[in-house]
Amino acid sequence: MRQLELGKAFTLMESGPVVLVTTHDGKKANIMTISWSMVMDFTPVFAITTGEWNYSFAALRKTRECVIAIPGVDLLDKVVGIGTCSGADTDKFAKFKLMPVQARLVRPPLIKECLANIECKVIDIVKKHNIVVLKAVAAYVDTERKERRRVHAVGDGTFIVDGRTLDRKKMMASKLPLASLPAQVSQLRS
Amino acid sequence: MRQLELGKAFTLMESGPVVLVTTHDGKKANIMTISWSMVMDFTPVFAITTGEWNYSFAALRKTRECVIAIPGVDLLDKVVGIGTCSGADTDKFAKFKLMPVQARLVRPPLIKECLANIECKVIDIVKKHNIVVLKAVAAYVDTERKERRRVHAVGDGTFIVDGRTLDRKKMMASKLPLASLPAQVSQLRS
Repeated sequence: MRQLELGKAFTLMESGPVVLVTTHDGKKANIMTISWSMVMDFTPVFAITTGEWNYSFAALRKTRECVIAIPGVDLLDKVVGIGTCSGADTDKFAKFKLMPVQARLVRPPLIKECLANIECKVIDIVKKHNIVVLKAVAAYVDTERKERRRVHAVGDGTFIVDGRTLDRKKMMASKLPLASLPAQVSQLRS
Repeated sequence: MRQLELGKAFTLMESGPVVLVTTHDGKKANIMTISWSMVMDFTPVFAITTGEWNYSFAALRKTRECVIAIPGVDLLDKVVGIGTCSGADTDKFAKFKLMPVQARLVRPPLIKECLANIECKVIDIVKKHNIVVLKAVAAYVDTERKERRRVHAVGDGTFIVDGRTLDRKKMMASKLPLASLPAQVSQLRS
């Protein structure tokens, strides 16, 4: 995995892919599947909606750290499986044969099989709305990976795979914080 | 446009498409382009990130109403155009040749050319994070429309079009609030 400039990490999330979120409660690492997420800032800051109904939430609230791991479509069955069992009684890394990789600035692990990983610190929890606000502190992309299409949950049990990419950079030049497209992100596009 | 059961409206948003948001400041209607949005609840409740930097925000804060209109990929150039000019000096419905349609429960108009429209009330503004929390009060889908693919912003001036749909309904049965897939939403899938 190659390190990605933090100012470009929002481009990993803005299209709204299903993501995996790893936490570590001090005893073991866990993974949850999240499709309720939002970019909030180019810094980059992200929001996810989660709460007591997720076993991972206790670790997230206590340790205030997580990793957002972005799976390719080839991992969809693992992603759905992770989202339909609980870390309370399951070692998800073992069950789904995913390789935890030591992060640099947080304790929850990166997931080796994913397209990209973003180390995050919790900067706020808006309890009233179950919104957890995260700030990225490091980001990585696997530039060797062949399957680069991400997947988007519809919410009815179906998932939409990334299709073709359309370029509107010239039209948007006045609005973009990125002067040029980094090679790593370019490779993330399908 | 056919009315959609409110409990299914989150399926219009969960995949993270770029959306148009209409507002009405009491004098005229306006449109903004948003890619920072998140489903938060099946009720359905949505979050968008917006603030003073958007001309539409003043109307949204004052009137506490908007419409989320979901464009198909055929509207991408209008979507980008709307996102790169301001309602302060532009009548965006006129400039982009979009047809406003009277909503039922809010003053901002639906957009006739869009795949789907969701009438929303602002239920909270989390000022600290520029998050506007919206509750849908009515939703519609255009079941006659041929181009049903939505589009997702990457954030670098490129956009990913919806590709193929993968069905994992059986695997997810325990997690889904929808007993069965409504025909209207089914037709929204590419």
